[in-house]
Amino acid sequence: MRTAFMARNAARIADVTVTPVAFKDYPLLNTVGVHEPYALRTIVELTTESGVTGIGETYGGTVHLERLRRAADELTGLDVWNLNDLIARTTRALGEDTSGGDGMSGMVTGSSAVDRVMSPFDVACLDIQGKLLGRPVSDLLGGAVRPSVPYSAYLFYKWAAHPGQPDDDWGAALDPAGLVDQARRMIDAYGFSSIKLKGGVFPPDEEIAAVKALRKAFPDLPLRLDPNAAWSTETSLHVARELDGDLQYLEDPTEGIDGMAAVAAGTQTPLATNMCVVSFDDLAPAVARGSVGIVLSDHHFWGGLRRGLQLSAICDTFGLGLSMHSNSHLGISLAAMTHLAAATPRLTYACDTHTPWKQPDEDVVDTGVLKFTEGRVTVPTAPGLGVELDRDALARLHRQYLDCGLRDRDDTGYMRTVDPSFSTKTPRW
Amino acid sequence: MRTAFMARNAARIADVTVTPVAFKDYPLLNTVGVHEPYALRTIVELTTESGVTGIGETYGGTVHLERLRRAADELTGLDVWNLNDLIARTTRALGEDTSGGDGMSGMVTGSSAVDRVMSPFDVACLDIQGKLLGRPVSDLLGGAVRPSVPYSAYLFYKWAAHPGQPDDDWGAALDPAGLVDQARRMIDAYGFSSIKLKGGVFPPDEEIAAVKALRKAFPDLPLRLDPNAAWSTETSLHVARELDGDLQYLEDPTEGIDGMAAVAAGTQTPLATNMCVVSFDDLAPAVARGSVGIVLSDHHFWGGLRRGLQLSAICDTFGLGLSMHSNSHLGISLAAMTHLAAATPRLTYACDTHTPWKQPDEDVVDTGVLKFTEGRVTVPTAPGLGVELDRDALARLHRQYLDCGLRDRDDTGYMRTVDPSFSTKTPRW
Repeated sequence: MRTAFMARNAARIADVTVTPVAFKDYPLLNTVGVHEPYALRTIVELTTESGVTGIGETYGGTVHLERLRRAADELTGLDVWNLNDLIARTTRALGEDTSGGDGMSGMVTGSSAVDRVMSPFDVACLDIQGKLLGRPVSDLLGGAVRPSVPYSAYLFYKWAAHPGQPDDDWGAALDPAGLVDQARRMIDAYGFSSIKLKGGVFPPDEEIAAVKALRKAFPDLPLRLDPNAAWSTETSLHVARELDGDLQYLEDPTEGIDGMAAVAAGTQTPLATNMCVVSFDDLAPAVARGSVGIVLSDHHFWGGLRRGLQLSAICDTFGLGLSMHSNSHLGISLAAMTHLAAATPRLTYACDTHTPWKQPDEDVVDTGVLKFTEGRVTVPTAPGLGVELDRDALARLHRQYLDCGLRDRDDTGYMRTVDPSFSTKTPRW
Repeated sequence: MRTAFMARNAARIADVTVTPVAFKDYPLLNTVGVHEPYALRTIVELTTESGVTGIGETYGGTVHLERLRRAADELTGLDVWNLNDLIARTTRALGEDTSGGDGMSGMVTGSSAVDRVMSPFDVACLDIQGKLLGRPVSDLLGGAVRPSVPYSAYLFYKWAAHPGQPDDDWGAALDPAGLVDQARRMIDAYGFSSIKLKGGVFPPDEEIAAVKALRKAFPDLPLRLDPNAAWSTETSLHVARELDGDLQYLEDPTEGIDGMAAVAAGTQTPLATNMCVVSFDDLAPAVARGSVGIVLSDHHFWGGLRRGLQLSAICDTFGLGLSMHSNSHLGISLAAMTHLAAATPRLTYACDTHTPWKQPDEDVVDTGVLKFTEGRVTVPTAPGLGVELDRDALARLHRQYLDCGLRDRDDTGYMRTVDPSFSTKTPRW
């Protein structure tokens, strides 16, 4: 019998670093306001006693960052194979401090603090496991069922520039024609074959017109509309009726498990969510009430990649579809999303990504391996995540974090610097 | 960066062997009849291109055995890390041939053929993964949360001997006093600290009296009663009332998801099942109807150890308890059950095992590492399952399979050789 034993300490964590970073963002509009000039993220790095490193990426707000640092202090000695111990250590580190800190500008507030905090460490542990084994992370998740993962074109209404700045390279998109132009340019550059529009910005009839324009311009591409729960039940049903047959799914038209159930009962259009089902605790009530047809998973708030597989098994078992949500992110997250999506048979929709809204030259890893071809990212085959930290780039983006002055995402506050009367009442329409 | 790369072929399956075995069994009574003189199992062995071997254990009936062989033919080239590919290959091997073949003598018939067939191969793949990594299987399942796993004393009504034979070493247990004696002896030998009685054999009031006698003799030990769905709803509620406060849980008092829901609605006693929820397809209806409080998992029909973790995540998410079911089994199964239970935080009940009903000198592995202390088995820490195939013993038990003439478990047919009028009508009472 030949076996390849590895010393136990090869997999024991000796060092943890937690580094907040900022990268340039565009003035993308949503129902709670507008993206600020910088998006905030945190990069975590684990190093084993034997010197193997693993990386993860998560949100960058102050409460979350402080929790990550507190968890980091508990991780020395963690065995990278022991997910149960990671959960226990994270739970212990947070204690009673589990409310708030979602860092999502008020849009996804009910997720689990333990799941959010453990997520980047889970990814980093898998990165190390993969390196120790000489295997890509997708293998550790049960094996890739597809060689590449499809992503969707993520359209946003946007201003031409941040206030007081010259027009940015994407320019304005404030009407159907502007969105069609944005879509065409994004599809030309990335090859996406499905389209998602972030709505909830303009009165529903304007957004219906935008979807109709996109449908006409791209007759063969699946379309999705996501107003981030800006609508009442009645408005949601009105939009669903008007767009009957035009949407692959309608994301979070209205708020809450009961609200979504009421909309679901009145339309054939499948409803998806990354707002009313955002933690394991939400699944039982949502299933019982028939609130949604599709869960938009996101390893950043579902507790990492292995918990993401559990979510997939639950969706499979209860007849729910599965797709993937995205926030502004860098390459570590894109690599992790790609491995998880590749190893999830159930995940048959194109995933969301904010990649087009990032400067190509701004990242903490060499993103060459994550290039989009026909809208897809090939699953990295190098050991671990398949992307390596660029320490100079990390230092640059950390410096940018220190210099930019932003410490918490605040789309609403930023919008009010332009429109002091801006209201976030829900439902907005 | 130091990494320990292993050649890909280290993990690719080159050879599969499938060996049916028989081991001596006692005349244990249940609602469909009585155990025959031999229990049948199948041992599978996978060998990688680099010569690393992994083992698994499953049922031994003819339909199942033939399916295992068909699946085996599809496994050459399988990567032991690729669970998704194992599922795909097993599914392909079975094609439309998925009905019957449960090998459970009519007691658990609704489980998935693909899950049953892939299970021993999943275990064997994990055994190899562990050997390649120098890690116990529990580490590959997320890490042991307890150093040892508690099992329960599994009491059976039984005859003094198989027909025509001298009394066996356990002797008869056909009334409360006989069961109390059996329990005392089993607890003295193994140190179990909870008790399960297989019921459905005698009229319910006799089994109520047996539980009352056990309660009196062992006032501090949790008790369970499992009549294998022998009762009507009314009888089930009668027994639950009579035993109110005496049972940790009542297992499968009546048949089916609807029947169990009707019983659950009428009693505070938690209901457990390994009969009405036996596959992922059963979970949604059982949750919707509130049929059970506790699922008795069993990796042999839930698709192996990794699927077992998925079941655990589902139970956690939907507020179901989790315990573990057992059939007549050998040491490979006991090792696999122990690793899974150790790595399942949710599994907080003592697991079932048939170990006391096996001859100590009959096994296909050296069971020294699986000794019971205070009713618990210490989780093996050697790489993989922690038990190694004894080829001489395997040959002996395979010879016994060939010689014994039994090819399918048939508790009912065996009972009818003694009592030709024996009926399996349900509900029996």
